[in-house]
Amino acid sequence: MSESDYMRNVKEKRPLVHHITNYVTVNDCANVTICAGGAPVMSDEAKDIVDISKIASAVVLNMGTLNERTVESIIISGKVANENGVPVVFDPVGAGASNYRNEVAARVLSEVKVDVIKGNAGEIGVLSGVGGEVRGVDSVSSNNDRLAAETLARKYGCVVAMTGETDYISDGERTVVLKNGDVLMECVSGTGCMVSSVVGCYVGANGVSVDSVAAAISAFSIAGELAAKTSKGPGSFKVNLLDCLFGLTAEQFDSIRKVE
Amino acid sequence: MSESDYMRNVKEKRPLVHHITNYVTVNDCANVTICAGGAPVMSDEAKDIVDISKIASAVVLNMGTLNERTVESIIISGKVANENGVPVVFDPVGAGASNYRNEVAARVLSEVKVDVIKGNAGEIGVLSGVGGEVRGVDSVSSNNDRLAAETLARKYGCVVAMTGETDYISDGERTVVLKNGDVLMECVSGTGCMVSSVVGCYVGANGVSVDSVAAAISAFSIAGELAAKTSKGPGSFKVNLLDCLFGLTAEQFDSIRKVE
Amino acid sequence: MSESDYMRNVKEKRPLVHHITNYVTVNDCANVTICAGGAPVMSDEAKDIVDISKIASAVVLNMGTLNERTVESIIISGKVANENGVPVVFDPVGAGASNYRNEVAARVLSEVKVDVIKGNAGEIGVLSGVGGEVRGVDSVSSNNDRLAAETLARKYGCVVAMTGETDYISDGERTVVLKNGDVLMECVSGTGCMVSSVVGCYVGANGVSVDSVAAAISAFSIAGELAAKTSKGPGSFKVNLLDCLFGLTAEQFDSIRKVE
Repeated sequence: MSESDYMRNVKEKRPLVHHITNYVTVNDCANVTICAGGAPVMSDEAKDIVDISKIASAVVLNMGTLNERTVESIIISGKVANENGVPVVFDPVGAGASNYRNEVAARVLSEVKVDVIKGNAGEIGVLSGVGGEVRGVDSVSSNNDRLAAETLARKYGCVVAMTGETDYISDGERTVVLKNGDVLMECVSGTGCMVSSVVGCYVGANGVSVDSVAAAISAFSIAGELAAKTSKGPGSFKVNLLDCLFGLTAEQFDSIRKVE
Repeated sequence: MSESDYMRNVKEKRPLVHHITNYVTVNDCANVTICAGGAPVMSDEAKDIVDISKIASAVVLNMGTLNERTVESIIISGKVANENGVPVVFDPVGAGASNYRNEVAARVLSEVKVDVIKGNAGEIGVLSGVGGEVRGVDSVSSNNDRLAAETLARKYGCVVAMTGETDYISDGERTVVLKNGDVLMECVSGTGCMVSSVVGCYVGANGVSVDSVAAAISAFSIAGELAAKTSKGPGSFKVNLLDCLFGLTAEQFDSIRKVE
Repeated sequence: MSESDYMRNVKEKRPLVHHITNYVTVNDCANVTICAGGAPVMSDEAKDIVDISKIASAVVLNMGTLNERTVESIIISGKVANENGVPVVFDPVGAGASNYRNEVAARVLSEVKVDVIKGNAGEIGVLSGVGGEVRGVDSVSSNNDRLAAETLARKYGCVVAMTGETDYISDGERTVVLKNGDVLMECVSGTGCMVSSVVGCYVGANGVSVDSVAAAISAFSIAGELAAKTSKGPGSFKVNLLDCLFGLTAEQFDSIRKVE
């Protein structure tokens, strides 16, 4: 199976991706899910989510603008997904930025069997215990990035995707290192959240593996590279990113992809 | 009165459209309201909405990301609108996708006199009892679409607008069948919510009738057709859709409109 | 210090701007913060915000879609900012539109030491007691605009920025009158919220003064003028506005700026 086959599977199966996510970038998450080939559904009411999480192809839990009510929903949704064999993607936005976020991240990871953790260097560094720097919800890279990703993957028996200028995708035994992307991706709010949605699509259609997660991240980063070529700034870049992901071909995927 | 006169009235009267809506597509709803010629206001706090719903030209109630608090607000807003003669547009997003959504939709329809129900084939099928298929918040069309719209309109004594590749707008006695639009409309999250906002503008400025609702749906779908001509994907399509709706002329409306 | 130096400082210091804001325009606020040169963080959970507000460069409190829970968060965040010397920008969206909004605005202004109040003519008119007209969350200008801004600034010992076709920025003693902008800015939901975010960046990097607030408003309005030149409507205008603010040069700033 070539890497672009994962993309083809997403477009064929149109996985339903249930999100409990923040209100800042939720619209971009919905649209990027469609552009990647999936079908988004967003719902965070406890009474509503059981029915939805159990029929989903994947669940994406993002704590960008967590509150007490939605933290409970995140836990419920994760447990329902676990019981029904639905892959769970966790995006611990801003872990390290406040004690509360650290506590919530720890609670999710202890009460839910998470299949993929997607974060930036700071978040993964904090959760792995290897250390990392977080400023607000932004991250500062360090030399320990790969080690942090691998350590965290082993700690929770899951796939960890640490995104940044270089991306590390690891299950603790094997690590794929990716090099696509563009500096404009850092200039748009929510590209981190969006890539989690794309990961939701890919594991929903292909199952959970280092390769399916890496394919998701490549698809998004390659779309970003293509989008940057015709963009004049962060506004047009976000528009072009959606267009380029939507139109991404297997040929583009295979020829532009950079694996170290 | 020609159909494009409804559009002219919206632009002249600038109806204030109060939304209680989901956090996924709320920004698009605000912007589409402006582009259609109205003035949006979003508020869902019980203490705030009485003052706002009673001075609104129309109220749009959308259950896309409902929760216990906002469901109460939807009921209050609907009742205040009823008492003050303000038209109520109801968008039962995801009816059929969970028991909770079915219960909330039933409650809204029993406690509020709804003037327009706007939904996709799945939602209208479920609410009418004719049957319909819902996957997440997406819909699957059937041969019973027109029947479902007409049945639901008679059931609640309101106008029903079922949108899709073909749109059916019915008050149970007369049904207008519309054929504008573009496949890219299905590739953007929230086009369904957006059309409900446009309906709010049109019934706010013109009163409630099959024709005013049909004019709203035509305006949006024609803008979509025009937008698709210069779009490279869902990202640029949404941008162009707002531009095209904003600039839509009576001539374009009358010449491009397709009524069966 | 020339006015464009304020812009340079923002881009160099990359101030962290904590927002408690509405869910309608929050994504635009995040992106405009980045494009202005800052780093956005959005959080409204009481347990989370203490850690975040105290390390922020500025706090932006916006009551666009207030509810009982987030009003408490606004108060807590404002108090934490006060205790830690973090500038507070208050955007009283829709003051005058409902009794509840009037009460919340009064409460914020009595319990928090606000450094900047940014509003439209209606909101500032209402809060100042000079009078003003509000329709939903929109404003109607009057001849008393300048007086209202100056009166409100003296009342609370803060800088008031009243934005509209003409902008008045006053600390009660000195008033800067600005004339940049484009009519398309009124056709996009959230330009008012966005300018508050830009003000947050500028006072976060430069401290609070009539000049730093005026520089923020100029940067945004000049970007709007530049954006309008290549826009076909409100959709493309918002995209171009972000691009133009992101790429704004000191030369453009100084040559296009209109001060009366």
